[in-house]
Amino acid sequence: MNPSTSVPRTFRAIDIIRKKRDGVELSRAEIEGLVNSYTKGEIPDYQVSAWLMAVVLKGMTRPETAALTDAMLHSGDVLDLSSLPRKKVDKHSTGGVGDKTSLVLAPLAAAAGVAVPMISGRGLGHTGGTLDKLESIPGFNVNLSVAEFRRVLEACGCAMIGQTAEIAPADRKLYALRDVTGTVESPYLICASIMSKKLAEGIDALVLDVKTGSGAFMKNEQDAAFLAELMVETGERMGKHVVALITDMNQPLGNMIGNALEVVEVVEVLRGDGPEDLRELCFELAGWMLHLGGVANTVAEGKQQSAKLISSGAALERFRQMVELQGGDARVIDDPKRLPQARQMAQVTSAKTGYLVSMQCEQIGTACVILGGGRERKEDSVDPAVGIVLHKKVGDRLTAGEAIATIHYNAEAQAVRARQLIEASCAIADAAPAKRPLVHRIIGKSGEKN
Amino acid sequence: MNPSTSVPRTFRAIDIIRKKRDGVELSRAEIEGLVNSYTKGEIPDYQVSAWLMAVVLKGMTRPETAALTDAMLHSGDVLDLSSLPRKKVDKHSTGGVGDKTSLVLAPLAAAAGVAVPMISGRGLGHTGGTLDKLESIPGFNVNLSVAEFRRVLEACGCAMIGQTAEIAPADRKLYALRDVTGTVESPYLICASIMSKKLAEGIDALVLDVKTGSGAFMKNEQDAAFLAELMVETGERMGKHVVALITDMNQPLGNMIGNALEVVEVVEVLRGDGPEDLRELCFELAGWMLHLGGVANTVAEGKQQSAKLISSGAALERFRQMVELQGGDARVIDDPKRLPQARQMAQVTSAKTGYLVSMQCEQIGTACVILGGGRERKEDSVDPAVGIVLHKKVGDRLTAGEAIATIHYNAEAQAVRARQLIEASCAIADAAPAKRPLVHRIIGKSGEKN
Repeated sequence: MNPSTSVPRTFRAIDIIRKKRDGVELSRAEIEGLVNSYTKGEIPDYQVSAWLMAVVLKGMTRPETAALTDAMLHSGDVLDLSSLPRKKVDKHSTGGVGDKTSLVLAPLAAAAGVAVPMISGRGLGHTGGTLDKLESIPGFNVNLSVAEFRRVLEACGCAMIGQTAEIAPADRKLYALRDVTGTVESPYLICASIMSKKLAEGIDALVLDVKTGSGAFMKNEQDAAFLAELMVETGERMGKHVVALITDMNQPLGNMIGNALEVVEVVEVLRGDGPEDLRELCFELAGWMLHLGGVANTVAEGKQQSAKLISSGAALERFRQMVELQGGDARVIDDPKRLPQARQMAQVTSAKTGYLVSMQCEQIGTACVILGGGRERKEDSVDPAVGIVLHKKVGDRLTAGEAIATIHYNAEAQAVRARQLIEASCAIADAAPAKRPLVHRIIGKSGEKN
Repeated sequence: MNPSTSVPRTFRAIDIIRKKRDGVELSRAEIEGLVNSYTKGEIPDYQVSAWLMAVVLKGMTRPETAALTDAMLHSGDVLDLSSLPRKKVDKHSTGGVGDKTSLVLAPLAAAAGVAVPMISGRGLGHTGGTLDKLESIPGFNVNLSVAEFRRVLEACGCAMIGQTAEIAPADRKLYALRDVTGTVESPYLICASIMSKKLAEGIDALVLDVKTGSGAFMKNEQDAAFLAELMVETGERMGKHVVALITDMNQPLGNMIGNALEVVEVVEVLRGDGPEDLRELCFELAGWMLHLGGVANTVAEGKQQSAKLISSGAALERFRQMVELQGGDARVIDDPKRLPQARQMAQVTSAKTGYLVSMQCEQIGTACVILGGGRERKEDSVDPAVGIVLHKKVGDRLTAGEAIATIHYNAEAQAVRARQLIEASCAIADAAPAKRPLVHRIIGKSGEKN
């Protein structure tokens, strides 16, 4: 009956659950203990899910958020890329529709002299994923070992892979639990998840693209800005240069949505073509990456350098190198027909004349998922060939019967549903809408000097 | 890729978790679905614990609370005692220290012509449990089958058993999960847990004794009143007469704490003796039980009848019958030495002269647990013989060196720690404290006419 010996093993976990439930700030040691014990399997899922829900509803202080990020970061290996002489800079997007900037930015920043060790994710829900896009290139291997990753990075200045078992295992386990317990939607947990993985890459600086709008996870700008501030502060606490751009996701980025289609558009941008909004965002983000990476004195200078590296073909050449080094068929760059092609195409036309005033961007993303181009569940496989090509963007004038989009599909029934969604997502009116800026705000101390 | 077929089985559970997290009222069907699926093992613990935490932090509406109670109630058997001609009335206490009223009330109300089908619990934490007290009577069997329970009830008008596997299995499973996930402390969940078990007894009316004060789970009266109102309303929604008395638990009830010792005090009360506070509360609660049971027109009349049944010996006789019918050695009634006796006794004396102005009642309960008379964990066994006999109660005058309490113990080290706790729990001052009423408030429509 001695309390110190009769205390069950779970007692510490329950104390931490109760504290968070009651709004008491947890210590770094308590958070570390919880994360480490959970990663080792010493605490059951049902205690951690209760704690996660308490975090969702009670929030976390900045020190708690930093402690959680740090504990998750150190639950696995942290890459040591100090042998690489260049500054290591990555970019992370919170996810959107048609967002293929990573594929442009990694070779572009690498061509400018910054190292980009990029560990990316797969698409989930209505948003696409970098790994799925890369894998539409025949042979492209995103599952490199750390040694291979390092070799590609040394050879061409950039490498793009998926999360390995060694990187932030606590995040993988926690994310899987959050996914089935309604505890994904917490800025503190999102921050710790993103930042722990990104900081495990051994980077010096990070550019965050926090999306807001109808196609983003954060539908309103306040939520996006809150998450952005949290991530910037958490990164700064860990001694990294972090800047966050709050960018518009009220319509798809660029014209192409779907894995292989997006690779086509990436190559267009790297050739100096491509849609204006995608080009603009790539230059904004590249400007920041080059600036934080120490190869440009200002963001403006970084943008100018980026433009030159595109027009000289150096960025495209770097992309070609990376594709080859990662086992991909680089011939797709000059011959896009070598990318997977959908068997059928169908047009979505405008029912009336007027201006395209808005698109329900999440519905466009969902239309692509319905075609087979994304996944509703992690276990789903994706069809790299299918997707949507937009011929009109918000603000464009339409004539009745004119094509708004072309659906690339492999199954008729899916195309029917996708078309319905795309049609329903487009609002057409007599007056042109006000133009919305692509970059809403820039958050981060690193941004003060610019 | 048809969403209706690709939806995983857990999707419904996660929708319910998310709704509760976001403060959306759940439908009766959703709550029933969750409880039934969990009881059948179709939903994992980690989803239910997240939902429970959301309930703790977001609360429940009255219809939700009623739906949860109803779903838990119908997760198992509901006793059908309609063949018994008498009205079935039970009493439930939220738990306290020295609270042995159930052992007095069941035979007393039975003697008055009310049927008392009482399903009770064991002690946990600093509070005692009716089953542990009954089991200190050699041979007393609290594990009757439903058929045996019914037979004892028919024979003597009362029966006292533990929860069976058939009664509210959802509550047993949910309670075990709440216990390890920091989700015990929710009035809505407490209400559903208590009321589902009590309503499964097939009763017509219920008298609730909701404790408040330093020895209660609800330390402040507002929390106690909130829970009481919730339980009364939930019971009334299900067509039962329910009344709740908010009663004082700032010091132990009666003088004896410990299982066998409390049986001794129960017999004293049934003989017309015993401490004043315990007698008073027994008469209050009995008055209500008789009134709601239809054998007394008013509570006052019920109290008068109760007094008569005590002085006539009818209540004690009924207790003797019940003990015998449940296999217990009824000779303990006339010869308390036949109850388990501790090997050692030690006195706790007053360090100074003055008035006993307060007792930290939870500490007195914990002192009894330390002696072995209670359990910190469900798996612990209890020593029926040990306990504490109080010689002074709050408001009494003390002389330095005078005995406040006698500890009945079987292990020296435990006695030392118990004595320290008891000493520390007693505050002595020069001025006598204001007298605190035993019954603070009465809650319930059934109470309006009185």
